[in-house]
Amino acid sequence: MENFIFQNPTKIIFGKDMERQVGAEAARYGKKVLLHYGGGSIKQSGLYDKVANSLKAAGVDYVELPGVKPNPRLSLVREGIRLCRDHGIALVLAVGGGSVIDSSKGIAMGALYEGDVWDFFTGKAEPQAALPVGTILTIPAAGSESSTGCVITNEEGWYKRPVNSELIYPRFSILNPELAFTLPKYQIACGASDILAHLMERYFTNTLHVELTDRLIEATMKTIIHNVSAIMENPSDYDAWSEVMWGGTVAHNNLLNTGRVGDWASHDIEHELSGIYDVAHGAGLSVVFPAWMKYLYRHDINRFAQFAARVWNVDYSVWSPEETALLGIKRLEDFYRSLGLPVTLAELGITDDRLDEMAGKCTNSDTTTVGNFVKLGKADVLSILKLARKQ
Amino acid sequence: MENFIFQNPTKIIFGKDMERQVGAEAARYGKKVLLHYGGGSIKQSGLYDKVANSLKAAGVDYVELPGVKPNPRLSLVREGIRLCRDHGIALVLAVGGGSVIDSSKGIAMGALYEGDVWDFFTGKAEPQAALPVGTILTIPAAGSESSTGCVITNEEGWYKRPVNSELIYPRFSILNPELAFTLPKYQIACGASDILAHLMERYFTNTLHVELTDRLIEATMKTIIHNVSAIMENPSDYDAWSEVMWGGTVAHNNLLNTGRVGDWASHDIEHELSGIYDVAHGAGLSVVFPAWMKYLYRHDINRFAQFAARVWNVDYSVWSPEETALLGIKRLEDFYRSLGLPVTLAELGITDDRLDEMAGKCTNSDTTTVGNFVKLGKADVLSILKLARKQ
Repeated sequence: MENFIFQNPTKIIFGKDMERQVGAEAARYGKKVLLHYGGGSIKQSGLYDKVANSLKAAGVDYVELPGVKPNPRLSLVREGIRLCRDHGIALVLAVGGGSVIDSSKGIAMGALYEGDVWDFFTGKAEPQAALPVGTILTIPAAGSESSTGCVITNEEGWYKRPVNSELIYPRFSILNPELAFTLPKYQIACGASDILAHLMERYFTNTLHVELTDRLIEATMKTIIHNVSAIMENPSDYDAWSEVMWGGTVAHNNLLNTGRVGDWASHDIEHELSGIYDVAHGAGLSVVFPAWMKYLYRHDINRFAQFAARVWNVDYSVWSPEETALLGIKRLEDFYRSLGLPVTLAELGITDDRLDEMAGKCTNSDTTTVGNFVKLGKADVLSILKLARKQ
Repeated sequence: MENFIFQNPTKIIFGKDMERQVGAEAARYGKKVLLHYGGGSIKQSGLYDKVANSLKAAGVDYVELPGVKPNPRLSLVREGIRLCRDHGIALVLAVGGGSVIDSSKGIAMGALYEGDVWDFFTGKAEPQAALPVGTILTIPAAGSESSTGCVITNEEGWYKRPVNSELIYPRFSILNPELAFTLPKYQIACGASDILAHLMERYFTNTLHVELTDRLIEATMKTIIHNVSAIMENPSDYDAWSEVMWGGTVAHNNLLNTGRVGDWASHDIEHELSGIYDVAHGAGLSVVFPAWMKYLYRHDINRFAQFAARVWNVDYSVWSPEETALLGIKRLEDFYRSLGLPVTLAELGITDDRLDEMAGKCTNSDTTTVGNFVKLGKADVLSILKLARKQ
């Protein structure tokens, strides 16, 4: 186990009707909020009215910024930053899924920075301060409701880039599983894929002696796998949604990577897919992860065999751990398929013509590597993308 | 799953040499610290000098209060409160195990309260403010380094009583597994018993649909069971201590009871044992828990069978879940024995003459109950104590 520092300050407010507490929570930070959301779904569902009423009842004024799209865009973040400055905003309130929350985090960092917010995503500058962010989560997936992460897409060149900073842990996040009942099944599946990916990125590590976090990650994976299948049968299953919603937060709140180094190559590779082709992040991950695994499982067959045995209930073969490992990868693919997710680039409609470009962008023209479990250069990424073309 | 609010602000600073950061951390809260510890062990080990040097280097002055004993006493807490007031203390720094930390928490609450601190333990008053507490943990056991709990013993009548308050989450806790290398084996065993008890108190619940937390608790239990056995073989096993030290914190930092109601009867019953007989808390728990289980496992055989199968690797018998459940209890007893812990009152030297008194004190003369999984009156507690007399 490696030395580590862990502190996650997000206040989790979990359960039925908890969105009614948003006004009281927001009022702790000031009297003026930027209410940031996506499209009309929170109006149709009645959530918008509940939030507005709760804010008003607590004496909190708000400025609205709707329009967040999946793979949230830099231009809207810049607009939010202007609004924060013009209106003296005290808190950015995200009502939505990971895209809305990430967009809010970008705004929160940019509002207190004199330069251009994209500087944080290119590494030109590091955030030194941020407005507080609060969230009401409607889509269990990204884990951004209690994470240090923020991923924004720059439309000029379609660069999708992450920033990590402890400054953007949300101060509070309201999680009511009922808010997820109306999600389309494909989006449910993509969310589960994203959660599982956050767990697998942490799981595949070279750090030795990490039994506790191994087992905690496995526990969370098993819970997600079990309960998302129940949700696909009945999208109004509160109990199953509770497990997935809370599991999605635990998967990404940094507890499960204490003392270990995660991989994150699959996320980096997927960012090129969804940056260029605007595919759903979870669908990109279900294509990239099996290919990534097939490309490098021999790097640590024991870890892949443990994954297969403990998470997927594969009978561990002492005679051939490799067989065990490969069966685990197959079960993962079967699981993705059972949710209606793609496992090949072909299913995403991605042909061969830009694979080389994506591999290049991912590795800055082969000058950097992605991943920690195995460090991958451009040729490795290209090989993984080629493995992902078809089964 | 029940609705819940969860926020644990403790900053965990984990790993080799991390005690050297104590000065910098303490300085965030002010320039005057109450340095609270037990006996001479931290002087012998050199830890005292490291802490003193780190504080001095950071420009932090300190007042010392040594003398904390196991089952920390009210009189010393009162002395600490006087010191805090006299010296304008900004932070109570606990260097030691759960007793030192609990004593520090008592001091921190009492220092900002006009009345007598024992009011918080009798329920006469609720804490409204507390000085910040920081810790350097030397004994993985109580979990107090990142918990809301504080247990103090009033020598006038030997009442051992708990308080829970979010105000006393330590602001920071420094966990260096190396600091535990010199613990005597009996104390290692008692610590493991305490950690396991925190997990079992949370595990045995009537709340339905708690798969994630069930699995996270099981993961932590398995890790503790595995690694404490390794430590008994080699008390300088850094890797095994890392798992147990971090596991001991995770066991009691309230993440694992999110959305579920724990039991805590065994802790309440044990408090009477250690209050009257001053036995080690972990040794009291290894006596009480199996008896508590035998008394009421029929209340929910499935939960006990799950415990047996998932934690203790008992083959689940679909023909007799009860047999599975009982085998789990037996494995727990065997585990305690393998660590050299008592499993009967006789082994603790406790005879029959005060069982009735303890059952009475525990239930306030049968006017209140203990436990949530099954609510136990005086007669129930007496039956459990009688079951604990011998095997």
